[in-house]
Amino acid sequence: MSVQTTPRTHALMNAATRLRIDSVLSTTAAGSGHPSTCCSAAEIMAALFCAEMRFDPRDPHNADNDRFVLSKGHAAPILYAAWAEVGIISRDEVMNLRKIDSDLEGHPTPRLPWVDVATGSLGQGLCAGVGIALNARRIQSDYRTYVLLGDGETAEGSVWEAADIGAYYSLDNLCAIIDVNALGQSGPTQFQHDMEALAARWRSFGWHVVVIDGHDIGAVLDALDEARGSKGRPTMILARTIKGKGISFIEGKNGWHGKPLKKGEEADKAIAELKSQFVPEEEPLAPPRTPKSVPRPAPKDAPVVASPYKLGDSVATREAYGAALARLGAADDRIVALDADVKNSTFSDKFLAEHPERFYESFIAEQAMIGASMGLAARGAIPFPSTFAAFLSRAGDFIRMAAISGVGIKMAGSHAGVSIGEDGPSQMALEDLAMMRAQPNVAVLYPCDAVSTEKLLREMAYHRGPAYMRTSRPKTPVIYGPDETFPIGGLKIVRRSDSDVATVVGAGVTLFEALKAYDELQKRGVAIRVVDLYSLQPIDAEALVQCARETGGRVITVEDHYRGGGIADAVAAAVASDGYTIQHRLCVHEIPRSGQPDELLDRYGISARHIVNAVLAK
Amino acid sequence: MSVQTTPRTHALMNAATRLRIDSVLSTTAAGSGHPSTCCSAAEIMAALFCAEMRFDPRDPHNADNDRFVLSKGHAAPILYAAWAEVGIISRDEVMNLRKIDSDLEGHPTPRLPWVDVATGSLGQGLCAGVGIALNARRIQSDYRTYVLLGDGETAEGSVWEAADIGAYYSLDNLCAIIDVNALGQSGPTQFQHDMEALAARWRSFGWHVVVIDGHDIGAVLDALDEARGSKGRPTMILARTIKGKGISFIEGKNGWHGKPLKKGEEADKAIAELKSQFVPEEEPLAPPRTPKSVPRPAPKDAPVVASPYKLGDSVATREAYGAALARLGAADDRIVALDADVKNSTFSDKFLAEHPERFYESFIAEQAMIGASMGLAARGAIPFPSTFAAFLSRAGDFIRMAAISGVGIKMAGSHAGVSIGEDGPSQMALEDLAMMRAQPNVAVLYPCDAVSTEKLLREMAYHRGPAYMRTSRPKTPVIYGPDETFPIGGLKIVRRSDSDVATVVGAGVTLFEALKAYDELQKRGVAIRVVDLYSLQPIDAEALVQCARETGGRVITVEDHYRGGGIADAVAAAVASDGYTIQHRLCVHEIPRSGQPDELLDRYGISARHIVNAVLAK
Repeated sequence: MSVQTTPRTHALMNAATRLRIDSVLSTTAAGSGHPSTCCSAAEIMAALFCAEMRFDPRDPHNADNDRFVLSKGHAAPILYAAWAEVGIISRDEVMNLRKIDSDLEGHPTPRLPWVDVATGSLGQGLCAGVGIALNARRIQSDYRTYVLLGDGETAEGSVWEAADIGAYYSLDNLCAIIDVNALGQSGPTQFQHDMEALAARWRSFGWHVVVIDGHDIGAVLDALDEARGSKGRPTMILARTIKGKGISFIEGKNGWHGKPLKKGEEADKAIAELKSQFVPEEEPLAPPRTPKSVPRPAPKDAPVVASPYKLGDSVATREAYGAALARLGAADDRIVALDADVKNSTFSDKFLAEHPERFYESFIAEQAMIGASMGLAARGAIPFPSTFAAFLSRAGDFIRMAAISGVGIKMAGSHAGVSIGEDGPSQMALEDLAMMRAQPNVAVLYPCDAVSTEKLLREMAYHRGPAYMRTSRPKTPVIYGPDETFPIGGLKIVRRSDSDVATVVGAGVTLFEALKAYDELQKRGVAIRVVDLYSLQPIDAEALVQCARETGGRVITVEDHYRGGGIADAVAAAVASDGYTIQHRLCVHEIPRSGQPDELLDRYGISARHIVNAVLAK
Repeated sequence: MSVQTTPRTHALMNAATRLRIDSVLSTTAAGSGHPSTCCSAAEIMAALFCAEMRFDPRDPHNADNDRFVLSKGHAAPILYAAWAEVGIISRDEVMNLRKIDSDLEGHPTPRLPWVDVATGSLGQGLCAGVGIALNARRIQSDYRTYVLLGDGETAEGSVWEAADIGAYYSLDNLCAIIDVNALGQSGPTQFQHDMEALAARWRSFGWHVVVIDGHDIGAVLDALDEARGSKGRPTMILARTIKGKGISFIEGKNGWHGKPLKKGEEADKAIAELKSQFVPEEEPLAPPRTPKSVPRPAPKDAPVVASPYKLGDSVATREAYGAALARLGAADDRIVALDADVKNSTFSDKFLAEHPERFYESFIAEQAMIGASMGLAARGAIPFPSTFAAFLSRAGDFIRMAAISGVGIKMAGSHAGVSIGEDGPSQMALEDLAMMRAQPNVAVLYPCDAVSTEKLLREMAYHRGPAYMRTSRPKTPVIYGPDETFPIGGLKIVRRSDSDVATVVGAGVTLFEALKAYDELQKRGVAIRVVDLYSLQPIDAEALVQCARETGGRVITVEDHYRGGGIADAVAAAVASDGYTIQHRLCVHEIPRSGQPDELLDRYGISARHIVNAVLAK
């Protein structure tokens, strides 16, 4: 296809030139950033923002706006320039790029209302795009989702996870574009400009593929048209481009990644060359087309209801999780569930049975599951992705980016700790609390029984931001009444007296070890306080300090988790304000092995026997 | 291809039947496990272990043995059965499956000398296989590497990262087999028995593909032959199989994943049916062919040498890392380096420049990078994978499995913390210390200057097991002399006097903030002790306790890291034994933003000013 020269494309070519100029100016002003990466994408961005996408530039919150995800987040300057081009922000503001008092950060974050998810960790945008596209179906909107990727980032396996899921769900409302500029950060990309190698991959993953010259505005428009007309599968536009396009002395040259043009001669030369590329216009750009907006009822949180369990019922928290999720889903249609082929173990299959249209199977692809959840959450859904807690570590970087995004994904991880038994260490989560607690804005919850699971599930659904619930494999008795409340940031004192000699803090399965130790110690005339730390983050420091104070300053923690970053560290930080320390940290100190759950709890030092010994040891 | 009935295949068919019988018996005895998953792979395993692979069953440590990775780790029982079949272990031992006193765990781990890397987290085996195959080239061995995957796990993006790298490095010594049994844990796999969909994917990723009936021993042997003859690219054998094959009442049935046959009637019926499948044999199985073994000199650790830096030199620790790695690589050819397209930022390009044959580019694929490192380490290399520390979280699950494997991967993460500046939070590692410290056997190191970087890099190379080094982006002055030593598990007291009013513990960039605070406080007549905590794990608890004791029990930590799981938690755990707590935890308490490094250190409360205030606040 050759460059078309209609009045419309002339205007878009000039828009692309303005985007390049602004990208150069803003990165030069900032003294850092990625102008060459912006230049390769200028025609794509101009076509998307100035011709293809429907959105109301005055209303970022319009649920029917087309969505754009800049997966190659380091091209942020051209995104901000595109916003200026369509009147979302002013051109002056673009020049505040990367300043501490501007939200126009080095990589886009949802501090900016037009950004759904933070990007900058490559290979995540398409996963989020899948979630955003799934959400369109959920709310019955015809908004389309566009994702711009770099070619280098397609080395990330997460991109192929998203490719699979996008095709599986026949997301023809999803259009991705790869800016194939052939240069990564530190050298040429694996496939450089071998467009056929890339096309074969995407075709084999079930996508409709269009290969174009990414600097030919007409070709970009045609490809976007074709994508809009393609039914039953998502479209991938592979755009062959030149990194640094438009600035002859950096075009296609290695060594210009993440390097602004130097203020003065170098930048001036680039700007002069870009300005020379303006073409005569016969027709100004039309303002963005606004979407048909569908009125929707304001969502309402489901009411608090009594839990259906009776004291003494024996229910695994993972099973209570599935049941609670299915019940909450009946009361609030924003609730959706995502699985990574363990729904019969996490019991999210209970949700599937009742709400199949809001259940998304990700197969064994945890990154795509969490990434899609981020996209869903950003657009108003309340997603509950779940798998074995150990396998959430597969999505560690996504969880990190979800925290930066502040999106309300509600993660659940089952099969925590050595108490899973014979399957062995590969299936045991012993570092999940550390991973989750390391993010300052993730609520970390760990119920011990069915009632607290049910109540905490509702709490986490309506908690602002990301949250994590750790569930357990073994059945545990119900110890809380049906109307008990479990605010996030609280704890329960399960046993107490005026003569308690120590505070034992447990959660999940170890709470029951603490209760067994309590009974054993009672026989010996020794009283202990038992705390159920169902909320690790935020944590009720005041109550913990009070317990420490009332039990002679003796605090013992017991957790089915490694030593670092879990309950012990959380409690230690909480009680330190008043000078208290943890006297015994009962936890798993080494890589465990296969065995029966009770054998393992005992062997790794977290059974009732060890608690009794710790209390008596002083 | 039809079932061939040569004397050889008859014997192998019977071996496959024995493998099925043992898998059923051992899982039934254990009361848990995955017999149906074993049954689909029986002919593949029989062909590999009883015909194809060359190994000395008496010597697991023979460097030239062909290697086998069971990526579908839940099929462990059939691996153990295959070992029994070739005389590595006894048939009786197989029946100890999953017992606490047996190393035959639910999923294989390197506690067993024939296992290179632990599996059980799906999608990791091929990454390790790539590393093992790369290692064959490094040691100039003609051993071949075989990886058996499940079809479900190919949904994991990491599999496609490995596919890319395997093809990029033309690993024709690598042969993977997918046991396409069409059933996942919780339902049918995405592609079920659509062999052409799977084949198209692998072809598009550059692999030689052979599609076979995985229950036809002759076809399996032919495919393995073909793989051995294929040059310039790895081979993928796609084997169409039936889950539960051989036991008619579970064959191809959903609901039989991870479910042993019940002791008694159910198991007896299965065993009887399997026994009926024995065929007459005219020729017994030949014992395994042993490999040509090449004598190799015993490796020697590089000698300790003085560091080339002078006091006061200004060098970023990331740059010192690259230089030290290149130097160590010259002295020890087991050292290899892996990159994820940031070699010009981590400075691993210094190693590339000097040792290109031992530098492996993974492009932007951190899972494949860490997975390949695991394979390399398991076979005697000393791999240093490096990227931005933030992006190591992409490989969180691989790091978890590396810890379970105990393999000596030497990870380096650059661009730690807010001190990277304008790029913003997506590029800032603020939870890497938590992630690494959560694994009980990962050494966690954090040098502040070029000398300590150089010395610690050698320490970590020869440390047994996994290790992590955190490096920083900004240049920092050299404060240590060239002969200073830095044992893992130590710390340095950088400022001390008899009148210190508090101990300030820093590391990396915050050590210099502590030194600035020291100077400022000196002016005010206040002395503080300054500790460089270059080793977070193991940690020198004794020295920290002594510092606390000698400085009035006042301990202040300052770290370019979030609150959870980092220096504060590590120090708090260390000093608690003597009843000391941390008085002020200076760290990043919220999601940060773009800005200049110094602005950010100050804004997020970890600059010298904040340390001074903390010391003076009491």
